[in-house]
This record gives sequence, structure tokens and C-alpha cells, in this order.
Amino acid sequence: MNDRLTPVRSRHAALVQQMVEHQIDAYLVPRFDAHQGEYTAPCDERLAHLTGFTGSAGMAIVTKDKIVVFVDGRYTVQARRQCADPVFAITHITEAPPEQFLAQLPNGAQVGFDPMLIPPSWHHRFSRALRKHGGQLVAITPNLIDAIWTDRPEAPVGKVLPMQVAQSGETSAAKIERLKRHFMSEGLDFSVETQPDNIAWLLNVRGSDVLYNPIVQSFLVCDRGGRVDWFVDRRKLGNMDELPDVDQLNIHAPESLISFIAKRTHAGSQVALDPDFSPVAVQLAVEGAGGSVVPERSWTTLTKAKKTDAELEGMKNCHVRDGVAWTEFSAWLHENVESRDATNAPITEIEAEDRILSLRQQQPGFLYESFRSISAAGSNGAMCHYASDRDASAPITWHAPYLLDSGGQYETGTTDATRSFVLGAQSDVAYRTAYTAVFKAFHALMTLRFPKGTQGHHIDAVCRRPLWDLGMDYDHGTGHGVGHLLSVHEHPQRIGKQHNPVDLVPGMIITIEPGHYVEGRYGIRIENQCAIVEDDDGFLRFENLTWAPIDIGPLIGEVMSTEQKLWLKQYHHDVQAILSGALTERAAGFMARLVESTETFAAS
Amino acid sequence: MNDRLTPVRSRHAALVQQMVEHQIDAYLVPRFDAHQGEYTAPCDERLAHLTGFTGSAGMAIVTKDKIVVFVDGRYTVQARRQCADPVFAITHITEAPPEQFLAQLPNGAQVGFDPMLIPPSWHHRFSRALRKHGGQLVAITPNLIDAIWTDRPEAPVGKVLPMQVAQSGETSAAKIERLKRHFMSEGLDFSVETQPDNIAWLLNVRGSDVLYNPIVQSFLVCDRGGRVDWFVDRRKLGNMDELPDVDQLNIHAPESLISFIAKRTHAGSQVALDPDFSPVAVQLAVEGAGGSVVPERSWTTLTKAKKTDAELEGMKNCHVRDGVAWTEFSAWLHENVESRDATNAPITEIEAEDRILSLRQQQPGFLYESFRSISAAGSNGAMCHYASDRDASAPITWHAPYLLDSGGQYETGTTDATRSFVLGAQSDVAYRTAYTAVFKAFHALMTLRFPKGTQGHHIDAVCRRPLWDLGMDYDHGTGHGVGHLLSVHEHPQRIGKQHNPVDLVPGMIITIEPGHYVEGRYGIRIENQCAIVEDDDGFLRFENLTWAPIDIGPLIGEVMSTEQKLWLKQYHHDVQAILSGALTERAAGFMARLVESTETFAAS
Repeated sequence: MNDRLTPVRSRHAALVQQMVEHQIDAYLVPRFDAHQGEYTAPCDERLAHLTGFTGSAGMAIVTKDKIVVFVDGRYTVQARRQCADPVFAITHITEAPPEQFLAQLPNGAQVGFDPMLIPPSWHHRFSRALRKHGGQLVAITPNLIDAIWTDRPEAPVGKVLPMQVAQSGETSAAKIERLKRHFMSEGLDFSVETQPDNIAWLLNVRGSDVLYNPIVQSFLVCDRGGRVDWFVDRRKLGNMDELPDVDQLNIHAPESLISFIAKRTHAGSQVALDPDFSPVAVQLAVEGAGGSVVPERSWTTLTKAKKTDAELEGMKNCHVRDGVAWTEFSAWLHENVESRDATNAPITEIEAEDRILSLRQQQPGFLYESFRSISAAGSNGAMCHYASDRDASAPITWHAPYLLDSGGQYETGTTDATRSFVLGAQSDVAYRTAYTAVFKAFHALMTLRFPKGTQGHHIDAVCRRPLWDLGMDYDHGTGHGVGHLLSVHEHPQRIGKQHNPVDLVPGMIITIEPGHYVEGRYGIRIENQCAIVEDDDGFLRFENLTWAPIDIGPLIGEVMSTEQKLWLKQYHHDVQAILSGALTERAAGFMARLVESTETFAAS
Repeated sequence: MNDRLTPVRSRHAALVQQMVEHQIDAYLVPRFDAHQGEYTAPCDERLAHLTGFTGSAGMAIVTKDKIVVFVDGRYTVQARRQCADPVFAITHITEAPPEQFLAQLPNGAQVGFDPMLIPPSWHHRFSRALRKHGGQLVAITPNLIDAIWTDRPEAPVGKVLPMQVAQSGETSAAKIERLKRHFMSEGLDFSVETQPDNIAWLLNVRGSDVLYNPIVQSFLVCDRGGRVDWFVDRRKLGNMDELPDVDQLNIHAPESLISFIAKRTHAGSQVALDPDFSPVAVQLAVEGAGGSVVPERSWTTLTKAKKTDAELEGMKNCHVRDGVAWTEFSAWLHENVESRDATNAPITEIEAEDRILSLRQQQPGFLYESFRSISAAGSNGAMCHYASDRDASAPITWHAPYLLDSGGQYETGTTDATRSFVLGAQSDVAYRTAYTAVFKAFHALMTLRFPKGTQGHHIDAVCRRPLWDLGMDYDHGTGHGVGHLLSVHEHPQRIGKQHNPVDLVPGMIITIEPGHYVEGRYGIRIENQCAIVEDDDGFLRFENLTWAPIDIGPLIGEVMSTEQKLWLKQYHHDVQAILSGALTERAAGFMARLVESTETFAAS
């Protein structure tokens, strides 16, 4: 018997020792940091440090004998691969949620957690589950993962830069003024904002604390008098020429947030806090000081979702640039895969990923990628959030499927699109059937009109139906909001099965991205970004923003409607017209041939 | 100036006097009785007594100078007609809900209510709205409408009859046993059931306290030991041969419920109560005695929704009988409207309503109507829950639209269907366009396949899309559950825009009934009843139960897909085959001609 522990076993053992010292039976390790966002700094990658799982969502519950990892449908395959040690149990987070596991712990279970990392809604759910059998949550500070993490990186101090009003469309002072009016009408004293993209939007600044996402990790308290307390590391403000145009701005160290709130709260204070995206530590501090938390979705989240005209204009502009990169990429891919494959030097996933990046870098206003590209050949496409390994990147081969999900941060906005390719003829009927159904699903929402008051969960099935008809589905949402030079996944609007009580309103940006995945074989997804607009009769629809060619090779024309074919023909005509002049001769030629073959296809 | 008060003004004045005596600023008058059901006994028609509004849902908030009537989209037209006095303000209950009105009352408003008539969820919402500005709800017993209602009818004492196990498929003892297991697993001490259809199902009895609906108005307490306390007027049990087969059944007077609960509750008691369909008085009694209410949808509601095989069999059988009545009716209508119209003695709405009833009465096992038929000629069809006036019933004329929504209670189940007719050729393109879109909407759900975990609000838009495409919609749900010889509107499943977190599962019965309404002109609705069944691949779909011909005259074939036409052809073939032998010669001839013309239509 080998008595040397593997790294994961040794970390587990160290954590269990901490758990024993704190007299707890289990410990919660969420993927979230204190900002409950998707992108975390290396110092906050506690879940990855403990488990090796690097997905963008999930959590672990650690007991003395196992580590249960909860992930959603996008990550089950990846989690099984990254958490292969028998100490792990991988669980689907919605089918068997953490509270179900907690409810099954022995009677009286004491479960430790870090109150900066758990939002109030989770705290409420987990507490209720534990109380059923006499158990409880136990707040432990500082974090126990940090306690066992010997070489934990420093927190980031990315520079903060102002965003001009020409880009944002509204001054920070005007935004704060609107927020104050909200406090008045709701009888609130102050709000605690812990979502960094909301803070960036509110103060008209952008930062660089985490990858892909120009946010400023910080906290912000704003009161009904318009006083703004910003909890941000002063080093980030460095040589910024101007502070945001807010009347009463005070800078504090982030570490002082909780003690500030405890002091700022009086008996009877009404404090707005987002129950889903804030540390429960804030709520505990408010309640400890005799105040009440008013749980409401952050006003800023809802307000920022409805883009200003300037933001929409910027989004449209950067999507034209992004469309050029996509079209150049498609041309390059279609024209090179066969010969490279034939000469035994196939294009790799990483090469393709680098290529789309370099094509974007040639576009004016491009800053960096808006997320790590999913460049997935063959069966890798079945992992919805696959990231290719630079040292072991799979080849993109002739006749095989390839999927690219990729986007950019531009000075005037954020892009995100997905295309599925088969290079050369595709004879696999199952693939072609699924690809055609995914296109129909995509088309169903792209052409939908819907009345005011419609919410994302209402229209999700309209998209899925062509797949459901064939007994297929996909285990992820259908669409997400996108920030304006902010997070590529932006609340609160979302199209999915999950209840999302947010009206879709004009000015919102949302993706449409149905897919289909066959583990071990391939993944298919088609994704465009859209703005919601209002028609003359008051109905709403999705106005397309993305201009990237759609592979027509795998489509089975016989099972498509005339309307679907004509839509595709028009789309390629539009791509050609909108990008005309900006494409290289090679890409323009590729696009002209594609328009022609789409016309032939549509007429068939 | 006339100083004689109209009846409504005089009732309002009497109520205001009561309000002054009780020192309240407003008083809530819900349409609900203590059972929160759709059908109430005459003694419980408090909203109608005060306002004259006779719809099946709604409420009023009475202040000293006005009566604000809250109704949903089905009833806005009717409410405006029935509540024409300027003292009324008619409000859409979801667009401007009562809590919004309450929040706008003067600071510190005291709002009276009867705790037997308001469910906990409303109590919570209304209290919260009032608290924002220092107001509160004030429980007042007895009811203030009763106090001013001089000739209030007696409570009903309809006879109770047992339902045989051959019909129900499960003994009452077995049902109670399952309920006990639920108490065990959830750590509950007892439940308070106040929904009479749940009680009827649980005890395998049927009653006759209210119109159309064979329920027994009563309350029931069941504890984890299996003891059942039934709060029912003893006169209803009369000469019933056998009491339900429950081990420990105790009968109490309904009036003793609240005092019983106060005694039955101990400190720490965990009491299950449906927060949406129970009197808040129960919760107040439990909490007053130191117990806790566990708010959960009644276990019985959810369990009863999944019909037993015996119940499904019964439903199918009675639908064949009902289909005969519908087909006979359709034949009669199509063959008589022209001549009756021409001889200046047109068929009236009431005559048609009487005719479908008499045709049902000729069917074996028919008991009575399952709701008041909506027999609506021309513009009356625009009122979704129109009830024709026996003394002023509109004529059904040649070339004009007519709508019939009608159903029956049979010994083995409950039916509900709607058909829209145009007798003679219909040249109104707007009507034909809308009728075709309604048919497409109906077809969209009838042919849908969906994965497990799908809920009613997920698929509502699949149905509405053909209407949305044309900028149309309908302001009511798309489908409702149906009881087994119980309520024609049965929770918990529902297809609609409203969030309905109930999985659609095999064994559930649901209607599919899209429509379109043009005020002052016409209403269109097509409704079938379906059972949810599972396909071999694990996907679910709707299995049709209703066998009633669908008018093809107004359909515009050019805008229909081949699939839609072939579905209709198959449906009429099925109607003919399933009803064959049971139709009169006249109706069989009508059906044969319809099958033939549908074939011609489908081939065009």
C-alpha cells in the first residue's frame, strides 16, 4: 500500500484537519468569489485549488470522507475528467442540488462556510435544508481553503480607466441620480453593490482585475443622499487622470466593507441587497446592527441591461469588425483544412483559436478576447465549455466536425458567437439531422415576434421544439445577456428552462444559441447575438447583431421549410453586404461563393 | 338631484358604515369562499352581492368613495358591463394588482379582511405592500358583507355519495396511507385540507353543494397517525350507506375548525398548509398556538393530478359519449341555422345551449353540465366567459360566427371542449386569418413532444406563436387541468404565461385551448382535452381525449403547412371511427361529408 498521498488527497486531508479544529462535519467550497461573478482572480480559484475542476460554475461540499462536486450540464463531462480520484462524487447541480445532499447529512450536522462567498439565497436554502434535521450553517472566517493554500496568489490590482460618455451614453452622476430616485420610491436608506460589472457601469470605469472581463473588483455603497463609498484597492486608481464624475465619492479599502456596513446601519435602516449575487456577510452585518435587508435584484443590474443608444451603436459597430474576423476565419478554415490534413500537418484547435484572435487583432478597436475560445474538434465539441490544451490540442480534420465559440472585447462593445463546421462533405446522417434541427431551433427564435411582458423562460421551448420533435435536447440555456464592454454573460435576462422573471425589453442584448451534443462524438451549436427591438405594432423581436457565415454543407434541405431556406439566403446576402469592402479578396471570394451556393440551396 | 340611492350605492353606503365602525379605511371582498374554489354557494357570492360582477375570479377593494374591482383578462369586458356605476373602477388584476393599489393608500392605512377568505400568500403580499407606508391588514370576524346582507341564503347541505373503487382506482385508506408517508418524510404533524375537491378525492366521495361540481364543502385534518377529522355538516351524510373506508374518521361541525386547530396545535407542531388555497385563519390559529405552518402545495393536489389507470379509462369512455353529443350538435347546427334564420325564427344561444345539454342527457352515464355553457353568437364570443341571458339570448345567424364552450360531468369523468363555428361561407378575411392562426396554435401543442421536467409555462409560447406572428394574442391561459368527476378547472398543472412550477407528468389531464378575441366583433377558441403520455424514447406528449368535429370552412389552406392539413384529416377520420355506430344517421351522414371535405381540403 502506497502511503504517499496524491495532491488532492493531501489537500483534502489538510482541509479535514481544519474542519476537525472548527468542529464542523462538512465545509462548503463554492466556485464564487466575494463578487459572485463568472471570472475570478487566481487567488479566488479555491474550488479549482481543492478539486482541480476549472469550470466557471459549481461548488463542492467537503465531508471527512469525500468531496461532492456539484456542476451543471455544461460541465459534467469535464468534471468527471478533472476529478477522477475516487474521493470525488460528481453530481448534477439542478437534478440533485446541494440542499438535497445537506438534508441527508446526519442529524445535527454542522456545516461550515465563508460568509463572503455565499449569497443570501443559498444561505437561506442551505440553512432550511439543514434545519429539517437539527443541523445548521456555521460561518467561519477566514476561509479554510485559504488556510491550507500555501502558495496562494496575491489579489489583483488591475488599473482602472474611465469610459467616456460618448461610449456609455450617460454620465455617472446621472446614473447615481436615477438610483437615488429608486431609493426614494422604495423607502430605502442605502444599497450595497458587490457586483463589479454593476460598479463599473455605475461609475463609468473599466478595469483589468480578471481575464477577459474589464471589471474592477470592488464593493460600492450608495445612499439616498447620493453619497458613494467605493471599496477599492487605491493602487488600482494609480495615475487615473480623473475620478468618476460623482459628487460625493469616498474611497475605502475593500477589507473594511463589513465593518463599514455595521457602522453605517442604524436600527430600522432599510438596506437594498441582491439576494442572489451578494455575500451573505453583508446581510448578517446589517441585521446584526438592527437594520433590515430588502432583498431585491440590484437596480443597477436591471437598469444596465437596457442599453443606451450609444451603447447599442457601439455594439453594432464592433459586431461588423467581429464579422470580418469570422468571415476571414471561415474562409481560411474551409480553404486549408483539406490540404493541411492531407500533408499530415493538420490545423490544430489551438492554431484555429490563435487564428481567430489574430484576425480580431487586425480589427480597429479590438482589445482582447471576451472569454477563452472554445475551439473544439470532433468529440471535444461535446464538452460545452471545452478549453483546448496548448500542448495536446486536437487536429481539425477533413470531413470531421469542428466547433468554435469565440468573442472579443472591443472599445465599443462585446461580441460572442458560435459556428459549427464540417470541413468537406458530411455524410453522417445523425450529424446532419442534428445540425439541421439546431439550425431550425436557431431560426425559430431569430424570427420570433413576441408581446411585451414576455420573459426568457416563456420562449425557450419555441427554440427547442425542432430538437424535441426528434427526441433531442441540450442541457444548457438558450441565451444570455451580454455586457457593453463588460461581462460576456450578463444578468438578468436569460432564455432558458429556468424561471427568469425579467421582461425582455427593447435595448436588451441577448444571445440565441441552441445546440446538440453527443458525448464522445461531436457537439453542434449556432449562436448569434441580438438586440431586442420593438415593431410598429408594439410586438418585440430579436434584431441580429452577428455577421458570421453559417455552414450550409450539413443542412438537409428536404426537412427544411421554404421560410427557413429563404431566411438563410437573406442572412448570407446581408453578411456580404454589411462586410463588403472590409474583407480581404480571399474572404470576399469565399463569401461570394457562399452566397451563390446558399441561393442554389434555397431554390432547391 | 335624485337622493334615492341605487342598490349598489346603498350597499356601498351600508358597508362604509360598517367600515367606519371598525375604524378601517378599506375592506377586501374576494370572490373566494373559505375553500378558495371556483364554484361558490349562493351564500358565499359576496363579491356579486356587493358589485353585481358574477365572474368566477376577482376581488374588490372598497374604500369610502369607490369600489375597485380587480379581474383578469377573461372578465374585463363583462366587469365593465356589470359594474357600470361610476362608483366602480375596473382594474386588470395582473397588470395592476391589488397590492399595488394597497401600496398607494394613504400612510398608515388600516385594511379590513375576513381571515377565512384570504389565503396566506395573499395575506403576505398585501401585508407587505401596506407595511411600506405604515399600514396594515386588520382581521375582522364575522364578515362585513354578511353583516349588510339582509336576505343572505343558507349554506348548502348537498348529499354525499361514495365513489366506488372501480371508478377511483384506489381506496381511501390507501390514499391516507400514502399521505401519512409524506408526513413522515417531511417531518409534519398534520395537514389542514380546505379544498373540497381534494377532500372528495381523498375520501372517495362526491357531493352536491355547488353547481356543476360534485364537491363536498368541508374541511379535513389528517395527522401522521392516520387520524382523520372531517369538518362537514352532518346533514350532508344523511342516509349514506357506508362512510369512507378510513380507519379513524371523526366528524365535526365545519364551524369548529379554527378552534379545533388551536387546540390540536402544540408548541413546535409542524402543520402543512397550502399557502395559495387555504384560509389564512388556519395559519393564524396554528401560529397563535405556538406551532409552525409549513407552506407547501397540498400533497393531495399534486397526487390527485396524476390520474389512476381506472380514472383515465373512465375519462376516455365518457369522452366518447361526449363526442357523440358534440357531433350530433354540430350536424344539427350546420343543418338548421340557414333555414331558421331565413324563416325569421333563428336558433338562439340558449336554444343551442339547451340542445347540447339534451344531447348529452341522451348519453349513458351523463349527470349534469360541468360548467355553465358559453354559447356565444357573434360579438358575444369576445367575452371569454360569457353566459347567455335566458330572456335576451342572441340569435345564431347565417354567415356569422358562433362559439360553444361546454362540458359534462359523467359517472366516469369530466369533459370540457370548445368549438368555433361559422355557419355558411365566411368571407371576412380577418376572421378567417385569426381562425386559421388559432387552429395552428392548437395544432402546435397537440403535436408537441417534450422532455420530462417540462412545465406548463415552458410550452405556452409554442402555442401562441402562430398568433404572435400576426401580432395577435389571447389574454387567458392556454390549458388547465381537469378533475375526474370533479372540478373542470383543477390545479396544479396549467399551461400559461404565468410561472407554474409543476412538472407535466404522464397521467395528468390538461386542456389545450388557444383563442383570439375582437371586442364587439367575435371570439374564436378551439379546445380539446388531453392526457399526458410517455413515448418509448422517454419524451412526453398530449394524447387527445376529445372527439368533436372542427369547422374547416373558415380555414385558409394557403397559409397552412401540409403537416397541419394532414393532422386535421387524420383527426376527422379518428372522430368518425371512434364514434361510429353511436351516431344517429343524420349525424353519421354529416360526419361522412366532413371527412370527405377535409380530405379534399388536405389534398389542396
